[in-house]
Amino acid sequence: MRNLRRRLADSGQPLLLVTHLPNIQYLTGFSGSAGVLAVWPEKAWFWSDGRYREQARREVHGARAIIKRGSVYAAVAEAIRPARQVAVEAGHLSLREAKLLLGDVRRARPAEDWIEAQRMQKEPAEVAAIRRAVRLASEVFQRLLRQLRPGMSETEIAGKLEYGMRQAGGEGTAFATIVASGPNSALPHAHPGRRRAGRGEPLLLDYGVRLGGYCSDMTRTVCLGPAPARLRSIYAAVLEAQMAGIAAVREGVEAAAVDAACRRVLRRVRLAQYFSHSTGHGLGLEIHELPRIAAAPTPPRGRAGRGANAGRAGEDVCLKAGEVITIEPGVYIPGWGGVRIEDVVRVTARGAEVLTPSPKQLLEL
Amino acid sequence: MRNLRRRLADSGQPLLLVTHLPNIQYLTGFSGSAGVLAVWPEKAWFWSDGRYREQARREVHGARAIIKRGSVYAAVAEAIRPARQVAVEAGHLSLREAKLLLGDVRRARPAEDWIEAQRMQKEPAEVAAIRRAVRLASEVFQRLLRQLRPGMSETEIAGKLEYGMRQAGGEGTAFATIVASGPNSALPHAHPGRRRAGRGEPLLLDYGVRLGGYCSDMTRTVCLGPAPARLRSIYAAVLEAQMAGIAAVREGVEAAAVDAACRRVLRRVRLAQYFSHSTGHGLGLEIHELPRIAAAPTPPRGRAGRGANAGRAGEDVCLKAGEVITIEPGVYIPGWGGVRIEDVVRVTARGAEVLTPSPKQLLEL
Repeated sequence: MRNLRRRLADSGQPLLLVTHLPNIQYLTGFSGSAGVLAVWPEKAWFWSDGRYREQARREVHGARAIIKRGSVYAAVAEAIRPARQVAVEAGHLSLREAKLLLGDVRRARPAEDWIEAQRMQKEPAEVAAIRRAVRLASEVFQRLLRQLRPGMSETEIAGKLEYGMRQAGGEGTAFATIVASGPNSALPHAHPGRRRAGRGEPLLLDYGVRLGGYCSDMTRTVCLGPAPARLRSIYAAVLEAQMAGIAAVREGVEAAAVDAACRRVLRRVRLAQYFSHSTGHGLGLEIHELPRIAAAPTPPRGRAGRGANAGRAGEDVCLKAGEVITIEPGVYIPGWGGVRIEDVVRVTARGAEVLTPSPKQLLEL
Repeated sequence: MRNLRRRLADSGQPLLLVTHLPNIQYLTGFSGSAGVLAVWPEKAWFWSDGRYREQARREVHGARAIIKRGSVYAAVAEAIRPARQVAVEAGHLSLREAKLLLGDVRRARPAEDWIEAQRMQKEPAEVAAIRRAVRLASEVFQRLLRQLRPGMSETEIAGKLEYGMRQAGGEGTAFATIVASGPNSALPHAHPGRRRAGRGEPLLLDYGVRLGGYCSDMTRTVCLGPAPARLRSIYAAVLEAQMAGIAAVREGVEAAAVDAACRRVLRRVRLAQYFSHSTGHGLGLEIHELPRIAAAPTPPRGRAGRGANAGRAGEDVCLKAGEVITIEPGVYIPGWGGVRIEDVVRVTARGAEVLTPSPKQLLEL
């Protein structure tokens, strides 16, 4: 909050309206699903509604918490009325909200990613929280391995993963669990369905837990029974690409260079055209945070996926120590299937610290 | 899509930009997490990125699907450039997106809830999908009852619910599962934590499954062991309120009258001040849809919760046959706990059809 106020003062804007809930949580601790925060150089006010009276009392720090029985919008609009200009989170304020809060949308001054930029650099307590979440998810993976059998449905396997995370104390999933077998694994974001995992197919598992408010994210691709030659060779290429990406991570390196390191390996074996997404992303309170590990210049994305925070077009993003990111190249061949391998790593001055302890060799179960 | 085009033509706007993903799914079938749809009176185009190439091919109907390697925004902006005015979903288009897509935000013409208003009236196939989801969740509840023991943690119970839904073929949870024991149940939207359910306390379970893309939503409050007198009397009041709400449902009745029917019962026993949220909401592809079952005039909400679609301020909402809504009054007493009972009902010309088959008497397990 102190850093944010300094930035606000530097900007010359009288106040910042915070409407992105994870940013509100980061700044105040409030973890509910409805609220607006206004930050002035000398004070901060937070508004929510009757459902969150007790939760706001328990959680909110560093801001005055106000519970409104009537319209929260009207109360905020009234409080910020004296300001001629208002800094807003332009990516997290709808035209409708802007109208209700500001009356005239021309009062809005975009203050994009002020808080997201701060959130990139994880504090030690945040790294510890992510580490705990990542470790929990890895333990669940190890337990799942002993239970996997050919003929299990994707939803059943997803259920075992999610139950395992809950049993271990997880607060929920960090995103929609992906369990994709055989040809389904050619869809990078497949939903688990009734299809049953067969022998000799890729079985792709991508899931995360929320623990202490922070997210984990891991992907492994395994095979039930002996893996055919094609799966072996594609797996080896993706693993080599993933390790090349990790090896490229270091403070001061451009995110695009990490992305390029993965693609270079896949290009050599003519698989690069099947790697249809970016290499990774930051994570923390949200599953997708800055920085984005992708080719430069980063194009603006169509729509943010899974709450993504895409980097600004053409921006050169250099990794900094303290950032926590995923490295997750994949190869997806329509009709056949896909392989993805994903770890969470922490950027340090000397390289990458891999937080995900699960082994990465091709498991034939 | 046909109805929407008619509305578009009537509005005199040349095109509508659809940016709310559930609306895109409703209109085209696309269930991915990134895409933009543009609807003209005579055609519809849908854009997404490389991750969704195969999914778009499988799912999109009624629109031309375009996969962009580069910027989806730029492609959409180019395609809609000839239009001087563009109808937009003002509640689902951020200032940033508006700038990228329209250049000048003043081209935007709010077309709020055009699609949401259509979605309120469920088609028979949609009612059938909701019915299947509701039934699945109820079966999971019956199975859970046999497993509940004092000393189980909230997360463990949530895990059993979620695993049960997956085992039965569910595609995931419809919203963050709530399992709240003892004093925690005084928070209407509590997250499951490590607290263990004790004997003689309220144990509140609020959860939903997604099946065939559609949501279920149910809440039951049970007691492990014999219920003390206070829990019995509060439970009886909430149950009476909930049944009064259901009894008030009928085509042509104002949503506010249903809300009032619940509150009237609680007022009589001096518990109305502990009922701190609205009585219910529509549900379908999203867990919170129109109509909102709340006091009139509906105040604009602070921020939409759980993807809520709040009704417009002061609007008189009359229920129509074919709408599917929840009825879920609750009483929350800080420091003691809470009781909520929630069913999904379908509005008919003669009254309400209760879709949730689970019993509602106070269970002492």
